[in-house]
Amino acid sequence: MTLSTKPLSGMRQRLPNEFNIEKYVTEILSLSSVQAGFQEYDGPVIEPLALFAAKSGGELVGRQSYCFTDRGKREVILRPEMTPSLARMVAAQGELQLPVRWFSMPLCYRYERPQRGRVREFLQFNLDILGSESLSAELEVIMVLQEIMNSFKAPSSIYKIGWSSRRFMSDALSRCGVHIEIAQEVFSAIDKRDKMTEEKWANFLLGVCKGDSVLTGKVVSLVSVESLSDPWLVSLMAESSAFEEVVKFNNLLLGLGITSAVFSPAIVRGLDYYTGIVFELMDTGGQNNRSLCGGGRYDNLVGLFGNKKISGVGFGLGVLTLTLFLETYGLIPNSVKKASPADVYVAVASKDAVISAGLLVTSLRSHGYRVMMDVSGKKLGKQYKEASRYGISYLITVDFEEIDTGKYKMKNLLDGSVFTGSLDDLIGRLE
Amino acid sequence: MTLSTKPLSGMRQRLPNEFNIEKYVTEILSLSSVQAGFQEYDGPVIEPLALFAAKSGGELVGRQSYCFTDRGKREVILRPEMTPSLARMVAAQGELQLPVRWFSMPLCYRYERPQRGRVREFLQFNLDILGSESLSAELEVIMVLQEIMNSFKAPSSIYKIGWSSRRFMSDALSRCGVHIEIAQEVFSAIDKRDKMTEEKWANFLLGVCKGDSVLTGKVVSLVSVESLSDPWLVSLMAESSAFEEVVKFNNLLLGLGITSAVFSPAIVRGLDYYTGIVFELMDTGGQNNRSLCGGGRYDNLVGLFGNKKISGVGFGLGVLTLTLFLETYGLIPNSVKKASPADVYVAVASKDAVISAGLLVTSLRSHGYRVMMDVSGKKLGKQYKEASRYGISYLITVDFEEIDTGKYKMKNLLDGSVFTGSLDDLIGRLE
Repeated sequence: MTLSTKPLSGMRQRLPNEFNIEKYVTEILSLSSVQAGFQEYDGPVIEPLALFAAKSGGELVGRQSYCFTDRGKREVILRPEMTPSLARMVAAQGELQLPVRWFSMPLCYRYERPQRGRVREFLQFNLDILGSESLSAELEVIMVLQEIMNSFKAPSSIYKIGWSSRRFMSDALSRCGVHIEIAQEVFSAIDKRDKMTEEKWANFLLGVCKGDSVLTGKVVSLVSVESLSDPWLVSLMAESSAFEEVVKFNNLLLGLGITSAVFSPAIVRGLDYYTGIVFELMDTGGQNNRSLCGGGRYDNLVGLFGNKKISGVGFGLGVLTLTLFLETYGLIPNSVKKASPADVYVAVASKDAVISAGLLVTSLRSHGYRVMMDVSGKKLGKQYKEASRYGISYLITVDFEEIDTGKYKMKNLLDGSVFTGSLDDLIGRLE
Repeated sequence: MTLSTKPLSGMRQRLPNEFNIEKYVTEILSLSSVQAGFQEYDGPVIEPLALFAAKSGGELVGRQSYCFTDRGKREVILRPEMTPSLARMVAAQGELQLPVRWFSMPLCYRYERPQRGRVREFLQFNLDILGSESLSAELEVIMVLQEIMNSFKAPSSIYKIGWSSRRFMSDALSRCGVHIEIAQEVFSAIDKRDKMTEEKWANFLLGVCKGDSVLTGKVVSLVSVESLSDPWLVSLMAESSAFEEVVKFNNLLLGLGITSAVFSPAIVRGLDYYTGIVFELMDTGGQNNRSLCGGGRYDNLVGLFGNKKISGVGFGLGVLTLTLFLETYGLIPNSVKKASPADVYVAVASKDAVISAGLLVTSLRSHGYRVMMDVSGKKLGKQYKEASRYGISYLITVDFEEIDTGKYKMKNLLDGSVFTGSLDDLIGRLE
C-alpha cells in the first residue's frame, strides 16, 4: 500500500521555512506578553466534553468539534478554544493568587470547512487577566495588543481595534424598545452585520424585530453611532451606568493615545460568555475579512467549578490569520523568510577526516556558532552545493593538510574571499 | 452542574511555574539543535490511522492509541510518535533537498496507564537526519545528544548513551545459532532484559530458545559483552561487515572523546523500524528507570509513500522524563524555578492616576523592561503585596504628586532603598 504524502485537510504541517515564519509571529506575541508581566501556561488538548458543552455555545460543540469516546469510555473533545481550560486552572488555584495575568499558545481544533485563514487545527494565542473587576484590566490587555501591533511594525492605517460593551448594548437595545424575549436574537443579528450588504442586513433585522420598522430604525441608528458624544446616543443613555463605563473606557484609551481603538457598537462577539467590554482587531484594508482577534470581559466562567464568581478579561488571536495579515502587508521580514540554518559549514574531504572535522565542529559550536557538518560522506562538490543551497556564509574544508598543520581554510561564500588560520584565528575572524 | 477542577488523567497541564521549567528544558533542546544546523518543523496532531498502522507496531496502534472517526468519516489517530509524519513530509519534498537535518517538539498521545514519568499526553523532542547512509549521520545525532547533556551541565557520572546495532545483532545471533524463525522473538526477549532479574530473564530466554541451553548461553554471552575487542566476540564476528561498522563507529566516538557513549549489545529498541545503529540515553543512578531517549537508523520508512528508499537516523526524547531526571539531580537552576515575571511593578494610587501610570508603563516597556501594572484597582497595600508575592525587584507608585512633578519614587524591594527621579533617571537607574 502506498500512503498519501499529504496531511489530512485543514491540518497544520510546517516545513522549516514555514515554521520560521510562524515562530517569528509567536515569539513576538510571547515577548509582548512577557514584557507586560504575563506568565505562560498550557493545558491539555484532550478535555472532557462537559467542559465545553457548558459554555462555548451549541454550534461549536455540536457541529464543529472533534469529540470521541476514549478507551476509558470518557466523552472527550479536542479543545476548540482555551478559555474553559484556563477558567478551570484558575478555579483550582483558589482566590489567594488573584489577579493572574496569563498567556498561552495552544493548538485548538474545529471541524470547519477549510478555506484561506481557516483551518481545522490552529494555534491560537490567548492572553487573559482573571480576578480583576477594574477597567484597568481591559486597558492592560488592549495595551498589550497595541504593543503587539507596534512590534510587528504594523502602521495604524491598516488595522483598528473596534470595541463596544455587551452590557452597554443590552441596556441600549432595551432603551430602544427591544423586548427581552428577542434581545438574544437581535444580538445575534448584529453579530452578522459584517457578513451582509447594508440593505440585506436591514431587512434581516426587520424580520427579527417582527416587522417593527420604527424599532428596526432605532437599532440601525444604534449600531451606526460613531461617536460617544452623539446627541441621540447621549440622550438615549441618560444615567446609564453601562454607558458611563463605556465613556470612561474611551477616555482611558484616548489618554493613553491608543488611537487605533475605535468605539464600534456593532461589535458584540459571537461567544455567549462575554458580559462587558468586547473588542476585535480588524484589518481595515479589507484583504483579510475575518477578525484577527477577539476578546472581552467574561464574568461567570469560573463559577462553573463551584467557586465564587471570578471576573476575567482577555482575547484570543489566530496565529495563522495574523500571519496572513502580516504577509499581505509585507510585514514578515526577509531575514525571517530567508534565514540560513547555520553560520558555518564544515566539509569533510574523506572518511579519515571525520574525527578531525568533528572536533573542529564541536569547538566552533561551543563558541556559540551554528555549525552544519557534512553528514552525507559524499564528494566535496556535493557538500559545497549543500552549503550554498542553505545560504551559509562560511565554509571550512577539513582534509589531511588541515589535520597535519592545524591550519584551516575558511571561505566566505558571499564574497569568495579565503582566510587561512588556526582554530583560534577562525573564531577571531568569525567574531 | 459543578465541573471538576482537574484535567483528565495523564493529560498535560502546566501552571506558569511548571511551564517555566518545561520551557527551560525545551529551549536547551532547541538551542542545541539549532547550533548544529538543524531546522525546526511541525506536523499535525491528527493523522490518518493508516500512517501508523503501517509501521509503528501493533501494540502502539491497537491498544495504546487515541483513535476515532472524524465528522468526515475518516479513521484518524492522535499521533503516538512523530517519525511517520516526518517521513511523509520528507517523502513529499522529493530527493533534491536531501539530506535534511530536522527537529521538532511535538505533543504526542498514548493511552497508557499513567505513572511517574509516563503520561498520556506528552512533549517528545525529535531530531533526525534523513537522506544520508553515512555513519557521520549517526555520529552527528550523538554529538547533538552529548551537547544537550553538556548544556544541562549533567556530569558524565549520572548518565550514559548505550548503543548497539540491529544489523550487528541479527548477524551475531545468527552466528550464535539462533534460527531465523525465532530471531524476532529473541530480539524481543533481549529488549525486555532490563525489566527482569538476571535469573528470571535467563529462564525466559531459555523458553524462547525452546530449552536449548547451549544456545541460551551464547545469547547471554553476546548481550553481556562489554568490549568490542572481547576475543570470543571477535572470533564469532570474523569478516562480518556489520561488526566492522560497529567497530568503526566505536572508533569515531572514541576519537571525538564522547566517552559517555558505551557499546551495549543488549540495546535493541522495541520499535520495528530500526535497522542499523540503535542507542538509548540512560540514567545510571537508577532513580529514573526508563530510558530518557531512544533512537537509531531506520531505512524503509519513506518507502511507504512510494518513493525510493531514503535512509534516516534520529532519536526521540521525552521532555517530561528528561525533566524528572534533571530535577532528581538538582539540575534545574533556581533562577528558573523561582523566576519573577517582571522587573518593575507600577502601583496606581487612584483611578485618576491610571492614565499617567499607563503612560509610564508603556514607556518603561518600550525600553525593554518587563513591567507589571496594577490591574486590580485595589488599595496600594494590596498592590504592594502583589509586587512582593511575585518577587519583583522594583516598585514605582504613581499618585497625584508624581503626575504633577514628573518625578517618581522607585523602591528597591530587595534592599528597601528608595530612588527618586524623572522617567529618564529611572531608566538610567534600572540599567
